[in-house]
This record gives sequence, structure tokens and C-alpha cells, in this order.
Amino acid sequence: MAYSGDPVLAEELLFKPEHSLIDQSLNSRLGATTTNGDGFGIGWYGEGEEPSVFKGTDPAWNDRNLREVTRQIRTPMFFAHIRASTGTAVQRSNCHPFRHGHWLWMHNGLVEGFQHLKRDLVVAVDPSLYPDIEGSTDSEVLFFLAITFGLKDDPVSAVERAVRLVEDVAARHGVANPVQMTVATTDGQAMWAFRYSSVGRSRSLYFSTKVSKLLELHPDVEVLHRLGAETRFVVSEPLRDLSGAWNEVPESSCGMVRPGEAEIRPFRPMALTA
Amino acid sequence: MAYSGDPVLAEELLFKPEHSLIDQSLNSRLGATTTNGDGFGIGWYGEGEEPSVFKGTDPAWNDRNLREVTRQIRTPMFFAHIRASTGTAVQRSNCHPFRHGHWLWMHNGLVEGFQHLKRDLVVAVDPSLYPDIEGSTDSEVLFFLAITFGLKDDPVSAVERAVRLVEDVAARHGVANPVQMTVATTDGQAMWAFRYSSVGRSRSLYFSTKVSKLLELHPDVEVLHRLGAETRFVVSEPLRDLSGAWNEVPESSCGMVRPGEAEIRPFRPMALTA
Amino acid sequence: MAYSGDPVLAEELLFKPEHSLIDQSLNSRLGATTTNGDGFGIGWYGEGEEPSVFKGTDPAWNDRNLREVTRQIRTPMFFAHIRASTGTAVQRSNCHPFRHGHWLWMHNGLVEGFQHLKRDLVVAVDPSLYPDIEGSTDSEVLFFLAITFGLKDDPVSAVERAVRLVEDVAARHGVANPVQMTVATTDGQAMWAFRYSSVGRSRSLYFSTKVSKLLELHPDVEVLHRLGAETRFVVSEPLRDLSGAWNEVPESSCGMVRPGEAEIRPFRPMALTA
Amino acid sequence: MAYSGDPVLAEELLFKPEHSLIDQSLNSRLGATTTNGDGFGIGWYGEGEEPSVFKGTDPAWNDRNLREVTRQIRTPMFFAHIRASTGTAVQRSNCHPFRHGHWLWMHNGLVEGFQHLKRDLVVAVDPSLYPDIEGSTDSEVLFFLAITFGLKDDPVSAVERAVRLVEDVAARHGVANPVQMTVATTDGQAMWAFRYSSVGRSRSLYFSTKVSKLLELHPDVEVLHRLGAETRFVVSEPLRDLSGAWNEVPESSCGMVRPGEAEIRPFRPMALTA
Repeated sequence: MAYSGDPVLAEELLFKPEHSLIDQSLNSRLGATTTNGDGFGIGWYGEGEEPSVFKGTDPAWNDRNLREVTRQIRTPMFFAHIRASTGTAVQRSNCHPFRHGHWLWMHNGLVEGFQHLKRDLVVAVDPSLYPDIEGSTDSEVLFFLAITFGLKDDPVSAVERAVRLVEDVAARHGVANPVQMTVATTDGQAMWAFRYSSVGRSRSLYFSTKVSKLLELHPDVEVLHRLGAETRFVVSEPLRDLSGAWNEVPESSCGMVRPGEAEIRPFRPMALTA
Repeated sequence: MAYSGDPVLAEELLFKPEHSLIDQSLNSRLGATTTNGDGFGIGWYGEGEEPSVFKGTDPAWNDRNLREVTRQIRTPMFFAHIRASTGTAVQRSNCHPFRHGHWLWMHNGLVEGFQHLKRDLVVAVDPSLYPDIEGSTDSEVLFFLAITFGLKDDPVSAVERAVRLVEDVAARHGVANPVQMTVATTDGQAMWAFRYSSVGRSRSLYFSTKVSKLLELHPDVEVLHRLGAETRFVVSEPLRDLSGAWNEVPESSCGMVRPGEAEIRPFRPMALTA
Repeated sequence: MAYSGDPVLAEELLFKPEHSLIDQSLNSRLGATTTNGDGFGIGWYGEGEEPSVFKGTDPAWNDRNLREVTRQIRTPMFFAHIRASTGTAVQRSNCHPFRHGHWLWMHNGLVEGFQHLKRDLVVAVDPSLYPDIEGSTDSEVLFFLAITFGLKDDPVSAVERAVRLVEDVAARHGVANPVQMTVATTDGQAMWAFRYSSVGRSRSLYFSTKVSKLLELHPDVEVLHRLGAETRFVVSEPLRDLSGAWNEVPESSCGMVRPGEAEIRPFRPMALTA
Repeated sequence: MAYSGDPVLAEELLFKPEHSLIDQSLNSRLGATTTNGDGFGIGWYGEGEEPSVFKGTDPAWNDRNLREVTRQIRTPMFFAHIRASTGTAVQRSNCHPFRHGHWLWMHNGLVEGFQHLKRDLVVAVDPSLYPDIEGSTDSEVLFFLAITFGLKDDPVSAVERAVRLVEDVAARHGVANPVQMTVATTDGQAMWAFRYSSVGRSRSLYFSTKVSKLLELHPDVEVLHRLGAETRFVVSEPLRDLSGAWNEVPESSCGMVRPGEAEIRPFRPMALTA
């Protein structure tokens, strides 16, 4: 889940929505696995330019520090992630969101056959970035490939190139349809969300309708009056059942949100050698 | 889950049955909660008279030490428990099985209104035993009440008296139907299993049919030929779907198993002052 | 360590002083044990009236979340504690500071023979408070005794009565000189610090000199110019070696600090029945 | 610490020697850091051919499961390690001993400048082994280099080639004297111990005198009568102060122990291209 908008208490985002992220981790409805109990993480912007991250390997619903800390976080940009491991170790360095400089990155999905592709993918990471890889997941390698290809200058094109590299390497190893992903990334100002899979059947991803429009539809829903005009959520599953509130990000698309601006465009992994 | 019989590898009991305890903890079918991710524990008898216990607060399915250790445990008496907390803290000292001397105890269920009854219950524990209480759960207090009332001499009568005390204390506090329990306990030689609830609708509990009888029914099921004649399982949910293999422990009953002997009898909490 | 004063970043308090709390936990100079690696905790006031607490059972120097979170905490009242267990379990619920309502409490020292005295002490806690006890330490029971005796109205007298109760109970059990303590407690506005031991040889406790006075002594020490006029530290060991900066709290004394006010007075456990 | 000999209880090795590994981790005398609280691990041979490993990131002295499990391990080959991190994350996958097939490996020391050399070293690992690297430490990469160079056929020569590769890569990056190591490795039958550093000043390493000889020297030391004739210890620091019991492994040497056989020979990293 990603939140961008007026500063709010993280606790309100994590624990209070009707169908909150914590409830989702106990019993996810739309996800691929029934229980996401393999670690969690949050990232947020506050003091200083670099975001802070708080991660744990226990199930999010049991982490009392998480609850304590989110009671004190007031932030305009908040990322939260619940992990369901696809094989790699359950350890803090494998929890999302990943951070590099003032960027955050989180990923749902997987790189098929990652154990066999990993060496070729890691070798493609800029050698000067290589020492910054801390964990052992496909998600973090994807992040470092995107940075290698210019994430910090042109996020959409960088992710397209990273995904295409994975698909090329996979093809060389005889792995079909290797990428399955929804990704959210941010530099603290804007937020980008990607929905893509090589096979064309990606996991769900939603973004929230503009608050001004929602207020017209639901003038009597009290919580909407408390949300700032710039509020945008990007989520794997709708946070509560409110007609007109949630819009599915289309297959093979990328959305971008920043104060006063929001757009969706096609996401097309580009051939590296084209 | 409790196993009594010829020494077997704990790994075979935990990880290999078709519908194993580990799978159950990820997605329990008959239990009251959908995910049991609030800690786990195993207890077993080997070197020395006192059993060893291994417990953790991470989900059992993520504990790599659990898998490593169970590959090396060969034991004739094995207890395993997956916890779904009913409110008390997720910490090692609250994980089952509990141990006192050479006894083990594990409990599914709860004492309704425990936070309000706790002080009166704890005060009823033998003061010389009181310092041995390590955690904060209803299950452990029930264990210490049973020890106070003679568990080590006459287990069934001691548990009956402990349950009756809880019901009496609850009545004084206006809490109706306080006890919901399936309990397994052992001294390393015999194993007792209890199914009881004040309201008369207890969680499920099964014991396995004698291996000799199962072999007559299923001469072609290979695994049965590897089990010793004295093998008995007591489980919350059948480990695999085999006709005639699982017998429900009746409501308000207690079963006892030891080599060459097995019996079921009524369980009737006795008035303390009758 | 306790800080009261103008809002500062917790990171500056924990990680930046020359001889910081984190370094102390790796290699304490004046404490009773050489390594304090049995858990840690911080408590602070920010959003809302109730303070937040962040605690862990790993050594503080390894907790990456601690570092991340303290980078974002700006607070006028900050408590931090590194635990060296005197026997009770290393678990979150045993880590300091303890919280009740908007009060925090932390304790260095021990109650001698606590396992034997515990039942009598716990029974003396107000029954309506009893369910709020979460852990198994002497320190938390002392806190609850102090609340029972009026901590929230008259802190000094309440702690005196709590200590006297412990000494009375200990005498009945034949335990001599049971209390060894330095305690810090706060309601978010004022902070009280106690130094006492039944035998009259308490662990060290220091409070910092007024910043205005320090500036006269050390006009060239740059960090002093960044501290607000109301800044006060209470610590077990001086944070850095600066002449005139640290004042020992005398044996059997209690200090109180709040904006514009600071006093030290004798601490004399009173007979309960006098 | 490594033990080879008649099957003994691991508990006796870890917790009972006068100056045991657990005490050493709290307060090491000869090591480079004062407190080794960054994780621990044990490895042993029992059921099956592959050894089991049990590792944790909490300090060994606080791990109650460690105590429980070692009470039940009776083994002829036992490795134990207490970690003091030289920078890489404190997580289970970074704890020693490392395992590959039926081999165990543990390392004290470091590869200087590892973050900068890591990519070149990892690329030198056999690509078919690469996916088996689980953690992020220099120690594990050294292990995989040794396997790449034939550890399982000719251990001494393989470690010599691995060390020489590290020294070559370091030279190319301008890092002087990169290797500092004491290493113990085993296939379950024999045990090899290495003491080497590029600069020629390695950490301490000792092996124990033959029991038959020790009995001649100390016929009255009771514990010696309980040790089997083949008992050999390899340790960083002597386990107890017994004259004639401990022999220092010389600088740049390698020792090998197996039932009925023990030898020490020079360890000379060979040029790969010579």
C-alpha cells in the first residue's frame, strides 16, 4: 500500500481502514497466497531527506513496535508492505520497501526461476551499486537493475529496461514468462506504480479516485471530509467497499501521482538492443 | 499433536503427513481461527528424564531451526503445538508445550474473561509452585492449577478439580461458560487427552486407531507398515484422510494411552466443596 | 538515560554522544555487569497524550529499526534503557521503560530474592491494576506497587511506600537488604529520579548541570550552544567527560526536574503502618 | 570450537567447561572484540549423512532453545561458533557454521575491504554453486571459493587456492593484507583447522593434546577419564587452564584430525597462475 497526500498518521492508514493491510495479511482475499506472514515493512518521509524504514520478520499483526511507531508517524508519503516469500529467506534484509538514497521500492510478484537467473542478473547491476545489495530477493535485484538503468532520472523507462533485461536473460535460460509484478516506487515527491507480467495476467492493483470527486458521490461518508484534496492511495486490494472509490490499474500500465498531477500510461518493456 | 509409540523421527511427524501440522498452521480447516501464526513449540523425551522443549514466536513454517532440529529427534513421545493467541503476548514463555519437572502440557482453547479471573486463579496455585510460572497465559495457569490439585498422582481428577475451580471463580465474577479446552499432557510414559467445554461444544479432538486394526483395513497403505504396533496419535485435525483411522474423542471425555493400554472415560469437573 | 528539554532528535541522544548509551551497552564501565545485551527500550512523547514505547530483545547495537526510528523522533521527553537481566526472561514484556497511562518507568537494580517475594508483592498490587501487569520482572512489579500507592498524585511518597512494602515483605521472608535501585519516572511533564538501596550503596546516578551554567564554564564547546536552556539529562554514567557537567545524585535521594524547576530531596521509605 | 571424538552431549561441550564458549561470548579474553553478541551457530552429525545446523541472531547466552537442544545432541563431531560481525548484517543466513552437502565451515577473521572485492570474488565462484550462497558474508564466500577449488577432494590445497585468489583480487583493488582467518571445516569424518593471515599475525588457535598423554600428566583430573581416547578439540581460546593440554597451531599452518591420526603442516596459499 502506498499513500501520497497531506500528512496523516500512519496508524490511521495501517490499522483503521475497514479492510486494513493488517487484516489483509491475516487473510488476503485477492492475493496469490492465503497468508502473508513472512515479514513486513514500512517506509516514510519525515526528518531529513532520506526516508526511514521499519521492517520485521514476525507477522505484522504481532509486532507491537509497529503499532507504537505508527502512532507517531505523520507523513505525506507512506509505503507499507506485507511479504509472502516465494522461496528466499525470511530475514529483515529481504523485507520491502527497499531503500536507496531517498528512493523507496516495493514489489509484489516474482521472477520465475530466479535462483537460476540470479547470477546473470546480479552481474548486470552497475558494479558501483553492487555492494549496496543487502538481501537475496528477486525484488531487490529488480530495484538495483532499475537504478542501473536510470530510475532516478526516468523511472518508467528504467523499469521497462530492467524488466526487458530479466526477460532476455530468462529467454537465454529457457524460462518462459519470467516477470510477475506490481511495483510501487517513490522519490518522496512523486509515486510511480507498475502493473505488468510477461504472460499478461498480473496481480490486482488499484488507485483511489480524487477526493473531490468522491465527496460529490458520497457527501455523507465522514472520513472523506478528513482527507486532503491531494490524497491518493495505491493498493493491491481496495481498503474499503465504496462505489467509485477504486480504479483498477490496467494490465501493462504505469501510473504516476504527484501533488496536482496524476496520469496512467502504457508500460512496455523495451528491447535493450533494439 | 501428540505422538506416543516406537521412536520415530520428529521430522516425519511434523513435515511429512499429507495434511501436516505445518500446513495446518498456514491454513487450518477446523480450528477457530484461520491462521495459527502466533508461535509454536515442540516437546520430546530423549536424553535424561526431563523432556526438552523447543519454542519460537515466529510462524512455525518459517523456522529453519525447527526443521533442522526435528531431523535429529528420534523419540517415543512427541508433543507439538501451534499457537493462535487469544490476547496474551506472543513471547516464548507463552508458547506450548509447558513443562514442569518431567511433565508436558498443551492446551487449545481459552478461559473466557481470563484477564479478570487471573488474579483469583493465580492465588489458588500452590505458593511453592507460584515462582515457576513463567508466562502470562490462561493455559499455563490451568497447568499449574492441575499440578496444585495432584496432576502428577491422579491426572484426570486433578484436571477435573482445576477446571471446576475456574468455573467457580468465573461464576463469582459473573462469567458464564468460561472453559473451552482440548488438553494433552504426559509424564513421558502415558499420555492423557481431555476434551471439554463448560458450554458443551468443544473443539475437535481425534485419536488414531490401533495400527494392527488399520493394517487389516488398509493392507496396501505403505506407511502403516512402518509404524510400530503401539503407535497412537492425538490430534485436533486428522493428519490424512484414511477411512477408519480417526476416532473423535467424545464431548466431555478423557482418553489415556500408554504402551499396551488405551481407554476413554467421562470427564466431569467435580465441585471442590462437594 | 532520561532527557527532558527542548525537542531534540532521539538519534542525537542515543547514537551521537561521545560515550553513548549504545557504546555503554557494549562495554559498560560503571555498571554491575560487563555487557548489557538482554534487551532495550525507548519511550517518548509526541502525538497524543500517551507516550509510545519501542522495545526489543536483541542487543540495542544490532537493532536497525532502532536507528531508523530514532532518526524520526523529535521529542521534549525521552527515556532510553539497556537491560542486563538479573534472571527473568529476555522478552519484550520485560523490557523497560514500562508504561501505564501516560506514565513511563525504568529501573536499574534488582529486588533480592524476588522469585520468593513475588507472590506477596503481586498480591499487594491494586486488584484493578493487576491485569495490566504484562511481564515477569521485579522492576514492573515495583512500578505497579508505586501506582497502587499513588504515583500519579504524589510520586515521591508513592515510591517511598512501595519500597518500604518490599522491605517489609523481604523481612518477613528473611531476605536482608532487598532493594537496589535507580529509577526514573515521568508523566511527560516532569521527571523524577531515585537513587536508593536498602544497604546504602546504590549504583551510580548523575544529573546534568544547567545549560546556562555550562556555557559559562565551556563557552567553546559547540554542542552546548545547540542545547535548549531547559535541557536536563539523568544518566547512570556521564555521557561525555566535561568538567562541571555531571552531578552525582546523593545516596538515598530523589531529584525532580520540570521546565524552570529542579530540586533534590532525601528519599526515605516510610513504614506503612507508622 | 570444534570437537571430534567419541559421541558426547553437546551441552557438556558448550555449557560445562570452566571457560566455556558461552562465557567467552560474554567476555572474550583473546579475541579482537570484547563482546561476541552478533549471533551464534552449532553444527553436528547424527541422523542421516548431512549435518544439522542450529543458528540464531540473539546472543547465545540468551537462547533458551540452544540449551534445550544441546541437552539432546550426542555426536562425534560438533562445531560451535559465536559471531562478532565485522559489518555484514546480523541475520541467520550470516551465522556460522555454513553447510554445503555434508560439509561444515566456520571462520573467525575477515576479508579486508570485502564490500569492494565481493563482486569479483562472487563471480569466481562456480556458477552452478552460486545459487547456494544464502548470506552476505566474506566467510561464506570464502567457503564457496574453497568448494569451487576442490574442498571436497583436497581440502588443504583448495583453501590455499581460495586464499590466494582473495589475495590476488585484493592486490588488483589496492587492498593490502586482505586475509585474516582461522577456519575449521569437516566432512563429518576428519576435521581441518587453518591459521593464516596475509600479514602473518593471525588470531589464536589451539588444539588439544591426546587424552592418553593428558591422563599421564593429570591422572587426578576427573573429567579426563570420561573423555574417549580419540577426543580432540580445536578452539580459539583454551577451554580450561590445564598445563600441557593446549597446543598453539603455528602461524600459517593447517592441522588435520581424524580417528587414529593427527598432523600439522604448513599452509601456503599458492599462486593460481604459477
